[in-house]
This record gives sequence, C-alpha cells and structure tokens, in this order.
Amino acid sequence: MNSVDRMSNVAPPPTATVVVVGAGYAGLSTALALHDEGVDVLVLEGSDRVGGRVLSERVDGDLVVDHGGQWVGPTQTRLLAAAERFDCTTFPTYNTGDHLELWSDGVTRPFHGAGPDGAPGVDAYVAAAEVIDEWAATIDLNDPTAHPRLVEWDSETVQSYLDRTVSDEDARLRLALAVQGVWTVEPRDISLFHLMFYVASAGGFDQLMETEGCAQERRFTGGAQAVALAIAEHLGDRVVLETPVWHVETLDDGRVRVDTERGQVLADRVVVATSPGAAVRIRFSPPLPQARNRWMERTPMGDVAKIHTVYDTPFWRADGYSGEATAYGDHSVGVVFDNSPDDGSVGVLVSFVYADRQHRWSALAPEQRRADVLATLTALFGERAGNPLQYLEKTWPDDPWARGGYAANPAPGVWTEHGATGWRTACGPVHWAGTETSSVWNGYIDGAIGSGHRAAAEVTAALRS
Amino acid sequence: MNSVDRMSNVAPPPTATVVVVGAGYAGLSTALALHDEGVDVLVLEGSDRVGGRVLSERVDGDLVVDHGGQWVGPTQTRLLAAAERFDCTTFPTYNTGDHLELWSDGVTRPFHGAGPDGAPGVDAYVAAAEVIDEWAATIDLNDPTAHPRLVEWDSETVQSYLDRTVSDEDARLRLALAVQGVWTVEPRDISLFHLMFYVASAGGFDQLMETEGCAQERRFTGGAQAVALAIAEHLGDRVVLETPVWHVETLDDGRVRVDTERGQVLADRVVVATSPGAAVRIRFSPPLPQARNRWMERTPMGDVAKIHTVYDTPFWRADGYSGEATAYGDHSVGVVFDNSPDDGSVGVLVSFVYADRQHRWSALAPEQRRADVLATLTALFGERAGNPLQYLEKTWPDDPWARGGYAANPAPGVWTEHGATGWRTACGPVHWAGTETSSVWNGYIDGAIGSGHRAAAEVTAALRS
Repeated sequence: MNSVDRMSNVAPPPTATVVVVGAGYAGLSTALALHDEGVDVLVLEGSDRVGGRVLSERVDGDLVVDHGGQWVGPTQTRLLAAAERFDCTTFPTYNTGDHLELWSDGVTRPFHGAGPDGAPGVDAYVAAAEVIDEWAATIDLNDPTAHPRLVEWDSETVQSYLDRTVSDEDARLRLALAVQGVWTVEPRDISLFHLMFYVASAGGFDQLMETEGCAQERRFTGGAQAVALAIAEHLGDRVVLETPVWHVETLDDGRVRVDTERGQVLADRVVVATSPGAAVRIRFSPPLPQARNRWMERTPMGDVAKIHTVYDTPFWRADGYSGEATAYGDHSVGVVFDNSPDDGSVGVLVSFVYADRQHRWSALAPEQRRADVLATLTALFGERAGNPLQYLEKTWPDDPWARGGYAANPAPGVWTEHGATGWRTACGPVHWAGTETSSVWNGYIDGAIGSGHRAAAEVTAALRS
Repeated sequence: MNSVDRMSNVAPPPTATVVVVGAGYAGLSTALALHDEGVDVLVLEGSDRVGGRVLSERVDGDLVVDHGGQWVGPTQTRLLAAAERFDCTTFPTYNTGDHLELWSDGVTRPFHGAGPDGAPGVDAYVAAAEVIDEWAATIDLNDPTAHPRLVEWDSETVQSYLDRTVSDEDARLRLALAVQGVWTVEPRDISLFHLMFYVASAGGFDQLMETEGCAQERRFTGGAQAVALAIAEHLGDRVVLETPVWHVETLDDGRVRVDTERGQVLADRVVVATSPGAAVRIRFSPPLPQARNRWMERTPMGDVAKIHTVYDTPFWRADGYSGEATAYGDHSVGVVFDNSPDDGSVGVLVSFVYADRQHRWSALAPEQRRADVLATLTALFGERAGNPLQYLEKTWPDDPWARGGYAANPAPGVWTEHGATGWRTACGPVHWAGTETSSVWNGYIDGAIGSGHRAAAEVTAALRS
C-alpha cells in the first residue's frame, strides 16, 4: 500500500497511450491487462484509494473488515486467478450450524437452504425461483437483447410480475428480500428482464443466494481489497489518486484529452471504468450518443449499508448457529452473516440494510441507527449481540465516488431501448468497463475484472488497427 | 433580444443575494419574482440563449417556428399572465376541419375528439381514459405521496397496467400513442403513479390531449420564447449567458459559492432551475441528500424530435383538414399539427417523433430522416406535403443543455421512495425550480413559471428569517 500512498500527491503525466478512469477492480484489471501487453497505461482515480466499491479496513491488530464487496465463489474464475497471481489467500465463509430467520410474526426459526421447512411461503418461494431459473437460462449472455421475450419482460417491474404470478403473500415477502439482498433495490424499482439477465449472468438463482459452491463461498484473508492493492502496487506510478476527471474530449485528430482537477492528459484511447453513478457526471465532448447517455441515466445505483459489529468471540457458533440470518417485518437489517476472521479469534457479524429500509434507517440519528441494528441482532442471537466491542457503518449511497452499491440496475425499458447500443459499445476512442458491462457475474467483483479484460482487448485491437 | 446578446461576453459579478441557475421559464420566473420584490438576483445560463426547452426561430420574414414548448391553454393562468405583462399576443391554434388518423392497417380516417367513430379500439380507449381521470382526480397535488394507492400505482409501469386492464389491443395502441405524445416515453418507461399525478396536475386527460379549451388551444404570435426574451430583457444584465455552473458549494457561514466556467459568484441562496438532465450533472458540496440525488438520477428526460415543414400555403385547409393527424404502425411521425402563422400566409406543419421511434429515426442519415417524415406527411395530406419549401429539425435529446424533452419522468418507485423528501424540498440554501417540481401543469411552461414563483417565495421567506 505504500507505493499507492506515495502516488497521491503526484500530478498525472501529460500523455499516456491509454487512460483508464477509475481504480476499482474494473479499471485496475483493464490497466493490468494492458500493462501485461506492454501498453503505456495510466489510471486516474478520483478518491484517495484504489478498490472502488471494495474497501477493506484494518480495524485493529489483524482484524480486517470488508465494507464493500467481499466474497468469492468457485465460478468466479477471474477473481480467483487475480488472487492467485498476487498471492492473496482465501478461506471458507463460516457455514456450520443453523441459519436463523426472524419472520414477520416475530418468531425466530432455524433453517438451511431457502428457508425453514414448512415456514410460511417457503414452498411457493422455491417454486417461483425455479421458474425464474428456467427462464433466465434461455438468455444469451453475450447478446441478451436478442431474447424473444426481451420487450415483454422489460416492460414490467419485478413487483408487478410477482403480484401477477405469485399468489402466496409470504412467498412474495421472501422474494422481495431476495431482490433487496441481491440487487439492493425494491422489486418495484427494476426491470424483470434485468433480473432474469442478472440471474443468468451468475449462473442461476442459487449461485446468487447461497454460500457453499456459490457466490458467498469464500472470503479473503487480507480483505477483498487486497488484490486491488496488489495490482495497484504492481502498476506503481501508473496509478494516480485524488485526480477526478471532469471532462473527456475527443480531438479532431482522433486522440482524447482528459481534463482532471490536476491537469490534462492526452491519450490515444480512454477506458471509463468508474461506477455508473460517477460516469454519468463526467462531461464528454462531443456529447456521447443518446443510447449511451440514456443507458447511464436510467441505470441508477442501488442502496445498501453494511454494519460490522465486533465481539470478543463468535459466541453464536457455540450456540449452534452459523451467524447467517434473515429478518422480515419492521427490522432495518435484512440479512446477517458471520464475518469473523478465519481463526475465529474474535467474532464479527455483518448486517445489511437495503433499499426502502436503508432510506428510513439512514434518516435516523447515529445512536438510533446503532440501537436499531443491535435490537435486531439481539432478537436473533441474544443479549450478547447487543453489546459489541466495536460498531462500524458504511453507507454506500453516501460515498461520493461509488454513489451507491452494490451495482447499478437498469429501470424497465432500458435494456429494450438502449441495450444493443448503449450497454457497453465503445463511443469512438472512449471505451467502457465496470461490472455493469459484464456478461458473466454482472454486478460482482469477478464481473468487474472480466469487464476490464474485455475493454483491454477492445483497446488493444484498436491500437493495432 | 439585443440586451441579451450584449450580456453574453460579460463575466458574472462576484456576488448576488440570490443566484438562479438556468434561464428557462423556471429560472427567469424565479428571478423576475425576486426582482419584483427588490431582491438582488443573478441568473447564470450555460447556453447562449434564454428559454430552455422553449426555442423560437425566425425562419425568414415574419415566420417564426417553435422548436420546443409552444402552446398555451386557458387554465395555464401563470403563462397567460406573464404573456399579458410583457404584451406577448396569442392566437387560436387552427382547429377547423377534420383531423386525420393513419391507422396501422394503412387506412386514413377523418376524426374529431378521441378518434374516428367506430374505428378499432376507440371506445375502449375512451373508457380507459375515463378510469384514469377518475383515479387521477383523487390525488392531492400539493401532497401527492399521501395518496393511499401511491405504492400500488408506483410499483408498476404504465405498460403492465395497460396489459392488465385493457384487453382491446387496438385501444392499447391508442393509449401508447397518448403516452408517447404527452410524456415522450414508451408506456414501459414510466410509473403508473406518475401518469396519474401528471393527469391530475393538468386537470384531466382531455386537458392534455385536446385543443379547444385545453393545453393546445393557443399559440404565441412571436413564438413561445417571446415571453422568456421579454423577461430577460427586463432583467437586463442580471442574466448572464454562456456561463455553465459546474459546482455549488455551501460554505461554513451558510452562504453558497457558485463555481462557473467564467468565475465564482457568492450568494445567500441558490435556486437550481435547469432541466433535471443538467441538474444531475452539477456537483454539490457537501453532497446533496440521498433522496434528492436519487430523485434526479431516477427521473430521466423524455425523448422527442420536432420537425417543421413549410409550404407556400396551408393547402390542407382547403381540402377540409385541420392539419392535426396521428400515425400508427411503422411511421416515425406520431402526431402532426398545423403550425402555420395566424394569418395563414404560409403553411407550416409540425411533426412529432417520440421515444422508440425517435431512437430509430435519429439513427438514420439526414436524407433518410427527411424522406421518412415526408412519406408520412404525403400519406396523410397528399403529394404536396412531400415537397416543402423548408424542412427544419430539432432533436431535444441532442440539446446539450436540455438533454431531452419535453420533461423528465420518474421511473417506478421514485415517487414512493423519494417523493416526500426529494421532489422539491430545499437542501439548506439550495432551492429547486423547474417544471418537474410543479404541482399544477407539471411538465408545461405554465408549470415552470409556477415553480419559479414557489421557489422565489421560499427564498424570500428564508432571506427574511
């Protein structure tokens, strides 16, 4: 991390063959792929750190908590390869014992899999998920807008689809929490087609929801930002921090001038790899094509906060609980996971607050927010959960660079109207990376890395032609 | 217009009591109301003209065409009052003779009112509009999110509502054109609640659709921009053009620093009155509250192009036609009006291209776009319509300041989640104007003026407190 720190007060050089805007996983992976090919690349990052929506904090001693993206699953091969290259080790997410569900009737029930056996709505929830899986599997990930039911699915919200097709009200509650947990929005906010695409992109509904063999299977020993920090260190002074880009101008000679708050950089190609919430605020001259503008404008960021509570020991394990839990009803917290270090030397729970609940919760005073989270943890895991040694919040919509999280989600109509042309098509010498442009594991760290590889390949081909 | 021209090369003064960002009707009306009260106000406009989404062009001689908002109806009292104050005269929209409908079967039928008697889907269309009217009338315009069916209506798109409630496919086609014509989007793009609110805001469905006694009743002799130009002339050097605002910072002492491309202005209060598509790109320090950010981010601009064709005479009138027409099927043009000057000294038709059709049409080469429009006009009004003396296009999504038109439309979920707090609530010393913030005639020039009056009243109250 030292070399990254050193860079932060250095103005960018006046030229580079390729400028990458944004030092999240997408931008860093773009730059690494180009650097590996010997291309002169420069990464400009607005904030004072790399990692984007992945942010690991060393709390004290050896304890690292992940405020952003944190897991890696077995099919996330691009993230696993990057971790291996830079010697970043992983360990299994703690997954022993019963999960707990705090249902809207106030009753807590143990469960494994989709929900407690025989609990309200579980069977109808599983049936609805199977239908989604079946449909999602028919989408061509490299050409999603070619799907024959694109317009039909993209013309309604997930909420109206659930209202229409799932008669069991309890199952609809379960599906709503699944949507909140995976997309960090309410079912009313997103296109049914996007939900289908996203499920397909992950390889199925269970891949998104489950731990063993799925997206939540493993964690990073040094935090999920470790790989990003290692890539940045490898790139050295080709990563410049605290350099917000506010204007990208394509010149008459085909080159691109990137205007930053700390000077201009002239490049042959630019890859914009910021979060969509930041990209939409960059000015482009000449203006971007309408399709790309509308794609960005109508694909808003999701809303999530992560709260870590630290205890002297993962006491719930001794009680036979995994630490994974879900809460329905009036609770702000929707989902909880055991986020303790591999050796279990201290106990850590991570609580997720999503969408409508995040809006309400964030409007509370700090002490009320804390009390609210601890009340849910106490209801789930007993009195000890209410007395953490440390309490840490990260509210992603307040992050000035990410502007939300986990990902951005197209509203109804966006895939239909602008998917074929606005999703990730280069605009002259301006290319697009970012997890939202990925066919595989869209919305995940792995998708961000994949998008960087695609963008780098586009740029390399363009530079050779 | 001379004094406005003179201003364009003058840098803004270093201070003003109130800075208004944007010199469309909202910003000019804010400034005029404050100026009338003796408040020191300064309007900063990014482009080289005033009027915003209202733009009148003197084509040659006395002929003026309106590329943007153009009509005024009898209940648009704030626009009428402004016109009267500045001696801008109006005249009735030509409305004699038969309207024409080119249906998807290729047959052209004359009509008055909602559609040709006995034509496919007309009765079911009228019935559906009556239901919308009945429901819309239950919305409290000053507190729309208090409506008991807010969440229900805001959870689905207009398309899924139509699919669910209107079984007649032809009626759905008619309703789709109504949505395209009024909101410049496809029914899949907007929240059903927003449609209801907007109908209520206009005073009913017919107010939006019809000419006599309704929104399209009259036009401005000097073009609809004339009132804006007169207000700007009245304000004199308090309107500064070609001064884009890129950063608004609230200082520790409560004042606001407005950073422009031509220097800084210090003010007690700021009113942001740009189009939402421009406002979302202004940087605010400290960051705006999440509700306001999300409201702007999830309320994208609509998509419309207006094409004027000029003929030596309004020849359709002699054939017994009003010049008003609608086109279904493969035509790019959706709606046509007679836009001739009051004396009929030349003939002018204005053709509207909306939403999906605008996306396709704008992707064509210029000569194809022209041929496409003229083919529809020929099908409607005969060979003479295919040989205009002049052909003029304005594509609002390409306008770098408006970034679309007519208005911005909240996606599903936006009213529910952020309506109460993000719609128009001032953020400290930063206030919001713009037609999208209006309770009455939201989306229209009249709503823009009303929003300016509200914002000015907010600012005046704040300055006095």
